[in-house]
Amino acid sequence: MLFLARMDVSFPAHLTAEQVADFQVREKAYSAQLQESGKMQGIWRIVGEYANHSIYDVESNDELHEILSGFPMYAHMKIKVTPLAKHPNSIR
Amino acid sequence: MLFLARMDVSFPAHLTAEQVADFQVREKAYSAQLQESGKMQGIWRIVGEYANHSIYDVESNDELHEILSGFPMYAHMKIKVTPLAKHPNSIR
Amino acid sequence: MLFLARMDVSFPAHLTAEQVADFQVREKAYSAQLQESGKMQGIWRIVGEYANHSIYDVESNDELHEILSGFPMYAHMKIKVTPLAKHPNSIR
Amino acid sequence: MLFLARMDVSFPAHLTAEQVADFQVREKAYSAQLQESGKMQGIWRIVGEYANHSIYDVESNDELHEILSGFPMYAHMKIKVTPLAKHPNSIR
Amino acid sequence: MLFLARMDVSFPAHLTAEQVADFQVREKAYSAQLQESGKMQGIWRIVGEYANHSIYDVESNDELHEILSGFPMYAHMKIKVTPLAKHPNSIR
Amino acid sequence: MLFLARMDVSFPAHLTAEQVADFQVREKAYSAQLQESGKMQGIWRIVGEYANHSIYDVESNDELHEILSGFPMYAHMKIKVTPLAKHPNSIR
Amino acid sequence: MLFLARMDVSFPAHLTAEQVADFQVREKAYSAQLQESGKMQGIWRIVGEYANHSIYDVESNDELHEILSGFPMYAHMKIKVTPLAKHPNSIR
Amino acid sequence: MLFLARMDVSFPAHLTAEQVADFQVREKAYSAQLQESGKMQGIWRIVGEYANHSIYDVESNDELHEILSGFPMYAHMKIKVTPLAKHPNSIR
Amino acid sequence: MLFLARMDVSFPAHLTAEQVADFQVREKAYSAQLQESGKMQGIWRIVGEYANHSIYDVESNDELHEILSGFPMYAHMKIKVTPLAKHPNSIR
Amino acid sequence: MLFLARMDVSFPAHLTAEQVADFQVREKAYSAQLQESGKMQGIWRIVGEYANHSIYDVESNDELHEILSGFPMYAHMKIKVTPLAKHPNSIR
Repeated sequence: MLFLARMDVSFPAHLTAEQVADFQVREKAYSAQLQESGKMQGIWRIVGEYANHSIYDVESNDELHEILSGFPMYAHMKIKVTPLAKHPNSIR
Repeated sequence: MLFLARMDVSFPAHLTAEQVADFQVREKAYSAQLQESGKMQGIWRIVGEYANHSIYDVESNDELHEILSGFPMYAHMKIKVTPLAKHPNSIR
Repeated sequence: MLFLARMDVSFPAHLTAEQVADFQVREKAYSAQLQESGKMQGIWRIVGEYANHSIYDVESNDELHEILSGFPMYAHMKIKVTPLAKHPNSIR
Repeated sequence: MLFLARMDVSFPAHLTAEQVADFQVREKAYSAQLQESGKMQGIWRIVGEYANHSIYDVESNDELHEILSGFPMYAHMKIKVTPLAKHPNSIR
Repeated sequence: MLFLARMDVSFPAHLTAEQVADFQVREKAYSAQLQESGKMQGIWRIVGEYANHSIYDVESNDELHEILSGFPMYAHMKIKVTPLAKHPNSIR
Repeated sequence: MLFLARMDVSFPAHLTAEQVADFQVREKAYSAQLQESGKMQGIWRIVGEYANHSIYDVESNDELHEILSGFPMYAHMKIKVTPLAKHPNSIR
Repeated sequence: MLFLARMDVSFPAHLTAEQVADFQVREKAYSAQLQESGKMQGIWRIVGEYANHSIYDVESNDELHEILSGFPMYAHMKIKVTPLAKHPNSIR
Repeated sequence: MLFLARMDVSFPAHLTAEQVADFQVREKAYSAQLQESGKMQGIWRIVGEYANHSIYDVESNDELHEILSGFPMYAHMKIKVTPLAKHPNSIR
Repeated sequence: MLFLARMDVSFPAHLTAEQVADFQVREKAYSAQLQESGKMQGIWRIVGEYANHSIYDVESNDELHEILSGFPMYAHMKIKVTPLAKHPNSIR
Repeated sequence: MLFLARMDVSFPAHLTAEQVADFQVREKAYSAQLQESGKMQGIWRIVGEYANHSIYDVESNDELHEILSGFPMYAHMKIKVTPLAKHPNSIR
């Protein structure tokens, strides 16, 4: 079952460059693991924005929320989720 | 080069059911051809809406506009395009 | 798996009162069947609007889209779907 | 008399993790009591967001405001309330 | 129990001046009756717009929806309802 | 001459509970005086929000701005004003 | 007492060029009379839009609504009114 | 003096394909003349939309409005104009 | 050449009352000079808001930007500019 | 391949005038280099706003994101990108 997410990152002004870098390292590891497991089907940078579109393949809404809220940067992201269904014109 | 599109379909009230069905047949054929050529990487129904999210892999903005404006329902769709770049956390 | 929907109905101006009444009869029957099967957990009128909030319990996004697009008035409704997960403070 | 609420939580940046945890403990207790009394009919997490939808069954607008403004996190929440009426298609 | 409503009127283009005038006569009578019964506490024109703000004093959400959906122009109005509670600074 | 206002209060995070309480005491006194003079015809809490709707009866726009900008919390409120005219359906 | 208005004109598709021209003639005459009486202090075209900003000097909200609703094109305009007060930095 | 415009075209449903084609022929001629005179510095299609961004170099707001309102499709376009000034980082 | 501006002032929370007062003194002087030179044709307070509408008569977009960015409070204002053209119904 | 960008700059309140000036110097150098290479085709100030519109000519979305995220002020800018295609009415 697929969902499209848009995530916008916004760090509070008081974070140090080190704190931001640490967030990014942990975020990268977390994303890699999600992709390897097949839970995250893809992630793309939105050009010019500190934001991504990503697609998730999960069993349930609860699983998706668990995944999204587990992102290291979760407290600093605004996430919008769109549930996707099979399109009649898809050949896959 | 990837782009995410959101397309919302809105037919004028005076179309007959036959006209709508004809649009849908032609739309399906056009979409299939785009998918087979690899230009359209995927298309999904947005749950509860006469709308889709779809991803395109094209050489240029001009090619993308040619593809989108070629949809049989183009005159009855509102399309928003988001350019996508490689995300540093993508493992692909 | 639960989803909240908001549906806003908007009939085109040319529909007759009989056509609207027919839609309403069929809509009522369809809603009743969804409630009896447990697929629709509840439906409430939004005060002052030709709109409802309703909650669905389904197995998948595909099933939800099939249910929503099966509403007799589907072509005349604007639907927004919000996926719901278990809340840590829920005692149920 | 039913109302749907959407609550979005946003803590100021200077709160410590302990302060946030304390808020969450008190919030959970308050929510539990509202559910046990029947005042809160349900609460669900909006997937991917620090937000909930919840349904209240109260005697009056005044009672609802008293309940909502009594949430421990009230000062850090943005709440939107939608009054609900019986839907003609509801079988309950 | 008080509610503030904002109603915006929008007639379809095909209505004749007579039909509009008839709506207005019936609307005026309906409003008068609501005011005499105390259900409508006041109604004011929003300057420059075919719209009003009005205040209702009702027993329940169901009663309010029954009143609002009973307006002769209901099918041609967009209504937004805001539930009001006692303000701590009110001296009444 | 009547105006409807909506006021949303938002205190900066650094205010102490004492400062907020002091604001509220002065606000209450100021509101009481406005009501006693007939300048403020009513004030109601918007359910679930730190906001009010209030109605003013003044001689001019200048008088209204003087009144609104005199609120002790003025610097921490976002105010939207709607000018009201007599409604043809009002029986008052 | 001054008010700023923004008026956006939108004619229904079925009007003939003659009907539109007739509206424009009557609108021009009405505007001229308002300017000569000093009620309308100025009117300017918003560049690129079938819209204007205009400033009114009136005794009351009721007078302003009477003036605005008297425009021949009133039924085809969307009007937003902003009440203006004396600015402390104005030297007039 | 430069201005950026965004123009969105929306034809009414009753136009025939011939009428639309005629509009497009006249629009093309008008645009060519504006470009040859240097008044229009550039025009680009917004990918996926029946819309353009275009840049104008004019002597005054009046001249710009005259140019924009002279487009054959003017009655069917929604135009938004943004005034541009020299940017301190521009090397031209 | 005329432009309408709307300016919304928002001071950061850490400014002292003295700093705000100093801004206001300098702003008043700057505004007076603009009015005396005829560059600013008028300035009005928006009732209930820390905001103004003002009208400028300038030779070019560059001159307008120079004027607006010269306001002492410029860094704390959000400004929206609307270019105005002569209206055919204006008698001036 | 062309893209239009709109960039809005918003510095956090704690930056010193020196830090802002340093950002501006580096931004100017970066912009100059982009213009000299032909990657940035133009940049204009939006009148009255700390914002610009700029046009980029790049080979790919990835190159555009690299350019945009390389701006010294990138962390303090909100950027919106619009992909542009050749317009049929362009004579270039």
